[in-house]
Amino acid sequence: MYLQLSTWQEVEVYLERSKAVLIPIGSTEQHGPNGFIGTDALCPEILARGIEAEIGCLVAPTLPIGMAQHHLGFSGSITLRPTTLIAVVQDVVDSLARHGFERFYFLNGHGGNIATVSAAFSEIYAEASLGKADPKRPPLRCKLKNWWENAAVQRISKERFGNAEGGHATCSEVSLTYYGYPQHRKNAEMSPEIAPTGPIYDSADYRLRFPDGRIGSNPALASVEAGKVLFEGAVPFLAADFRAFAEAH
Amino acid sequence: MYLQLSTWQEVEVYLERSKAVLIPIGSTEQHGPNGFIGTDALCPEILARGIEAEIGCLVAPTLPIGMAQHHLGFSGSITLRPTTLIAVVQDVVDSLARHGFERFYFLNGHGGNIATVSAAFSEIYAEASLGKADPKRPPLRCKLKNWWENAAVQRISKERFGNAEGGHATCSEVSLTYYGYPQHRKNAEMSPEIAPTGPIYDSADYRLRFPDGRIGSNPALASVEAGKVLFEGAVPFLAADFRAFAEAH
Amino acid sequence: MYLQLSTWQEVEVYLERSKAVLIPIGSTEQHGPNGFIGTDALCPEILARGIEAEIGCLVAPTLPIGMAQHHLGFSGSITLRPTTLIAVVQDVVDSLARHGFERFYFLNGHGGNIATVSAAFSEIYAEASLGKADPKRPPLRCKLKNWWENAAVQRISKERFGNAEGGHATCSEVSLTYYGYPQHRKNAEMSPEIAPTGPIYDSADYRLRFPDGRIGSNPALASVEAGKVLFEGAVPFLAADFRAFAEAH
Amino acid sequence: MYLQLSTWQEVEVYLERSKAVLIPIGSTEQHGPNGFIGTDALCPEILARGIEAEIGCLVAPTLPIGMAQHHLGFSGSITLRPTTLIAVVQDVVDSLARHGFERFYFLNGHGGNIATVSAAFSEIYAEASLGKADPKRPPLRCKLKNWWENAAVQRISKERFGNAEGGHATCSEVSLTYYGYPQHRKNAEMSPEIAPTGPIYDSADYRLRFPDGRIGSNPALASVEAGKVLFEGAVPFLAADFRAFAEAH
Amino acid sequence: MYLQLSTWQEVEVYLERSKAVLIPIGSTEQHGPNGFIGTDALCPEILARGIEAEIGCLVAPTLPIGMAQHHLGFSGSITLRPTTLIAVVQDVVDSLARHGFERFYFLNGHGGNIATVSAAFSEIYAEASLGKADPKRPPLRCKLKNWWENAAVQRISKERFGNAEGGHATCSEVSLTYYGYPQHRKNAEMSPEIAPTGPIYDSADYRLRFPDGRIGSNPALASVEAGKVLFEGAVPFLAADFRAFAEAH
Amino acid sequence: MYLQLSTWQEVEVYLERSKAVLIPIGSTEQHGPNGFIGTDALCPEILARGIEAEIGCLVAPTLPIGMAQHHLGFSGSITLRPTTLIAVVQDVVDSLARHGFERFYFLNGHGGNIATVSAAFSEIYAEASLGKADPKRPPLRCKLKNWWENAAVQRISKERFGNAEGGHATCSEVSLTYYGYPQHRKNAEMSPEIAPTGPIYDSADYRLRFPDGRIGSNPALASVEAGKVLFEGAVPFLAADFRAFAEAH
Repeated sequence: MYLQLSTWQEVEVYLERSKAVLIPIGSTEQHGPNGFIGTDALCPEILARGIEAEIGCLVAPTLPIGMAQHHLGFSGSITLRPTTLIAVVQDVVDSLARHGFERFYFLNGHGGNIATVSAAFSEIYAEASLGKADPKRPPLRCKLKNWWENAAVQRISKERFGNAEGGHATCSEVSLTYYGYPQHRKNAEMSPEIAPTGPIYDSADYRLRFPDGRIGSNPALASVEAGKVLFEGAVPFLAADFRAFAEAH
Repeated sequence: MYLQLSTWQEVEVYLERSKAVLIPIGSTEQHGPNGFIGTDALCPEILARGIEAEIGCLVAPTLPIGMAQHHLGFSGSITLRPTTLIAVVQDVVDSLARHGFERFYFLNGHGGNIATVSAAFSEIYAEASLGKADPKRPPLRCKLKNWWENAAVQRISKERFGNAEGGHATCSEVSLTYYGYPQHRKNAEMSPEIAPTGPIYDSADYRLRFPDGRIGSNPALASVEAGKVLFEGAVPFLAADFRAFAEAH
Repeated sequence: MYLQLSTWQEVEVYLERSKAVLIPIGSTEQHGPNGFIGTDALCPEILARGIEAEIGCLVAPTLPIGMAQHHLGFSGSITLRPTTLIAVVQDVVDSLARHGFERFYFLNGHGGNIATVSAAFSEIYAEASLGKADPKRPPLRCKLKNWWENAAVQRISKERFGNAEGGHATCSEVSLTYYGYPQHRKNAEMSPEIAPTGPIYDSADYRLRFPDGRIGSNPALASVEAGKVLFEGAVPFLAADFRAFAEAH
Repeated sequence: MYLQLSTWQEVEVYLERSKAVLIPIGSTEQHGPNGFIGTDALCPEILARGIEAEIGCLVAPTLPIGMAQHHLGFSGSITLRPTTLIAVVQDVVDSLARHGFERFYFLNGHGGNIATVSAAFSEIYAEASLGKADPKRPPLRCKLKNWWENAAVQRISKERFGNAEGGHATCSEVSLTYYGYPQHRKNAEMSPEIAPTGPIYDSADYRLRFPDGRIGSNPALASVEAGKVLFEGAVPFLAADFRAFAEAH
Repeated sequence: MYLQLSTWQEVEVYLERSKAVLIPIGSTEQHGPNGFIGTDALCPEILARGIEAEIGCLVAPTLPIGMAQHHLGFSGSITLRPTTLIAVVQDVVDSLARHGFERFYFLNGHGGNIATVSAAFSEIYAEASLGKADPKRPPLRCKLKNWWENAAVQRISKERFGNAEGGHATCSEVSLTYYGYPQHRKNAEMSPEIAPTGPIYDSADYRLRFPDGRIGSNPALASVEAGKVLFEGAVPFLAADFRAFAEAH
Repeated sequence: MYLQLSTWQEVEVYLERSKAVLIPIGSTEQHGPNGFIGTDALCPEILARGIEAEIGCLVAPTLPIGMAQHHLGFSGSITLRPTTLIAVVQDVVDSLARHGFERFYFLNGHGGNIATVSAAFSEIYAEASLGKADPKRPPLRCKLKNWWENAAVQRISKERFGNAEGGHATCSEVSLTYYGYPQHRKNAEMSPEIAPTGPIYDSADYRLRFPDGRIGSNPALASVEAGKVLFEGAVPFLAADFRAFAEAH
């Protein structure tokens, strides 16, 4: 069930059976020579479709812009400042809580979002903890789940890509988006084959360390077929994880 | 050309021929008994596809959440506070301006966004006007274009729907989303046939005035076929409008 | 009845008969070669005196500074950033709501305020809609009324100034301030006679397009006598509009 | 010279002889049984007229709303939150600094503004001190001058009102506004004759301590005549103080 | 009793006998050639130890960073922007109020904090006064006490240092820190012996006026022995002042 | 070298040999029945003394208040909202960067700070990446180092405490503070011996899950002696880590 394609009456009916909602959250940022700028938004969006097909959970629209300041040295990358993203997450949760939602499962496609979205959850909880939230509001629970953190993806990635998987513009995420958008996949030479690794500071520093945008990966190995395998491996795991979160006491 | 499906190198090439970008912006809010909650995001997204097909402009990911506080009395509606939406628009424009973009065309699907997004543009300009922007940054121009404000849509709407078009959950917007997502269209009784009209204040007041969410419309008249006509009428107009904005001196 | 010249006990008495207050809001910005920098604050202030004389409504002090970033290329212009103006409007409304005021009629003198003040209203409503306002507070209603948007002013302006009325530093507004402050009126050559028109972006762009500050007007036609006619035409209309807003169910 | 009644060209000429501007700042809050709610805005405004007449300095429009949270227990009182007032002062100074103003003399009518406006100055200076201001902007100097802190007012107040002068709704300030608006002066019994004194916390506590709003004063002693004497005593002192600030190296 | 060295159960017990807490607040900023950068945080911290020994009040951890923008021209100085410091004070008070604390005594070591911390108190009170605080929260009272503002310190300072006491990097504050940290005291030539005085604007201006950081003082006169006398003089006074604040009706 | 006990001239000298600074950051929050409320601030402060003794790095004052909203159900706990803590970290770094510092090593004592402080670093970097920082400022690098994340502490903790180490109010952290403040150590029954584990949401939920505040630990095992071993194990590791960060290219 997709929030964007539902009526408000249908959402009312959904709330009778579940207080949980799945919110894909991504980023719009460079992903190297053959990765889509939308990779980090498309991955959770693609997986959310699989999860929805399996368990019928409500899927909110994907939040396509994340915290990606370090990628601003590459054309097309967009960031929200952390304080902006905190406000966005807070408003989305506050709005849905008005209708009775209590469990917010953010399916995340971008490592750079983790700290800021976690801080946003604390900002939301702090409102209740400091006595500033509506005292009649039921307690809220938020969870950030990185789609790649599950046994299936870890295993497939290791088997297929080994040490070419990398940390940014990874083989897995590029494969998953190729599976979702096969007609858009790209060919590009990777030089060096496996990109360098290192720490992340600001965007100028990032561009110097990682000249084509990749970190530690060789996404020339990405394929539609691998994406399909990843999708089919990840969906059951994530569906179960969502359900566990939705139903936990 | 879609930002989400491009590489950063492709965006660099695009910037050699154009400094303009199209950004669909919508809302996630109730649209009456047979309208999608995503109507206001889906309309500009659908039209952006047509515009892109015609002129090849760069299309950013749709910003799916807008300023919809008045709809919070209906399940599934989400709002950003105006100050949050201002920060989002500012960060998106600031990010893209780093790469050399200078013209930002927001194709808007939601009347409730107009004031806030216009205020956001002023917040962006104010930074330059107050001497706080990077003095080397070229002057930026932002435009908010409501997709329904064009002669084609006005004419088609008037001919087909007359005084049943309405102000919220309009026949036109519901038709356009049915054209985009025909398999999801809904049937619903409208009672009264044409919804009441009135001013907009907070969400409790809104729900009292407009009990099923519609304002002044009878979207039972919406159809896939009308949506197609609207799409085909609007796209050339909006494509020309984008081009004029992109190329204006 | 003027808030600034009343005691708190007199305001208590007023609240027994009305929950509505009139708040003039303007701007401090260039108005071309012969217009006062205070034009946009003085116009609603002058008209508020006429309205008060007719219906005895409570008039708050004029908010003299508005959103005028585009005028910062001309000496003496002052702007609030949109986010600042939103906070100001919110605090003023929140304060007066503590005393029992429920209807807030902002009589506006500046087109550049419209978007931001409307966004401020949404910020105020959003607090209630998101469940963050005091649940015991009665619902609030805010209205922004541009003084020139009434049949009388439109007719007089058309008859007297025709296409020389313009969009900024208009003949009407300059006339109205001359009527209010006849001893301060100025003489200035207008070159060209009728100023150019165009879109508004930041202040550097504005100064290039509109070198003496005017848009589309020839305020050399302004006169004390025309100001008097405008005042006498507008006041009854605005008084009725205020009363309708104050008394609406 | 009044900013509101000047043209931008006249301000340009003024800037050739002075970089200093006088900005009256007040508050809109209860002033006891016979004091105007606008007392704290009207006092600096009235005095600014005298100063302007004497030395021809540029007078900005009065900022009529200040920090008055403690008065919100009395009808008609309005506050800006401190953070809002900081933003307002910052925007006003930043705007005028764009035109070349360097010295900002805030003539203050309200004790409750002192801390917040001083903090606002620090916020402005911090921008330069932290390297975030335009490095080409000349150094700015701001001064908050309480109109009653001068030898003339202190002497007159002591002679005429002695220990009935008080701390809020003082005899002096009420007299000064009666001098400015004699037709609006009020009669009211004071009970007790001299109001209590004590510390200031929130508005509920304030109302308990100071039931009619006054602190330590008996403003029944206020008169138009005393206001005239205060005006004539204060103006030369404040004019000299402004000039010294404007010309200091 | 020190908050940092207590358990939460011990704090619960404390709350049964007192709702008051002492919070040392300082700054981290240059203090001339022989003063510690931490002077303004160390002074209230040292005195708090004496007060705690005398009356057993609860002492919160020292807030070591204050509003010190004017000192940023000297290495090692740190400032919070006023708006940041307001947020910090607000969060600290809001947190402790959740546990039942009602009286917040900030023992202050830095003149530059006075305005901002006072504004923070108003921001806190405004929340209640505007009806935005939890209505069940008891009224809060905050006090900022500058440690040097007491008869003992004034007398000792006058007797020992006379006109060499000064306004920044004073003999008294340097002595007090020498008493607390005798092994760290410094020797430095003062040239001129007594530093100049003048107004405070931004950090560049400050450095020009006060080249070695001092204002009006000759802290070469500071000594461990004088610090001891100051400590012993100030503690009883401040302890009594805290107790009076804690117990006031 | 301690910033608080240095003069600005000594900091200038330090900057000639190093651009790196160590900033202990902690929290003020309950640590179960026998742990100090200041545990998370005291641990990095104690370790910083050891590191300083070994390598002479500059140690800034400890930031004692962190993000601890989840502990507000227990008396004495204090939180900064995430947005406040972001502003604090930003101001501290911006201030020190003015003097030439380029490497900021935050030695962290509190897991709850990780997300927010990491978001703060991104907020700082974003300023440069979005072109809003002073272009002449050298690139900044920030690192958050949790003191317990090093091989020595992991080994000692495992050997001595095994599965009684836990996640909050751990044996290690309580031991380390007992080593620092042996005279303040507490005795308390632990019931159950090992505390439960679980997820963290708001403070009411936390108190229900973890009734005495501990998570997964039995800090009755903590001892001064274990604290000494932990101190001696951790310091060389952390000193080397600081040096590596300070000197990295």
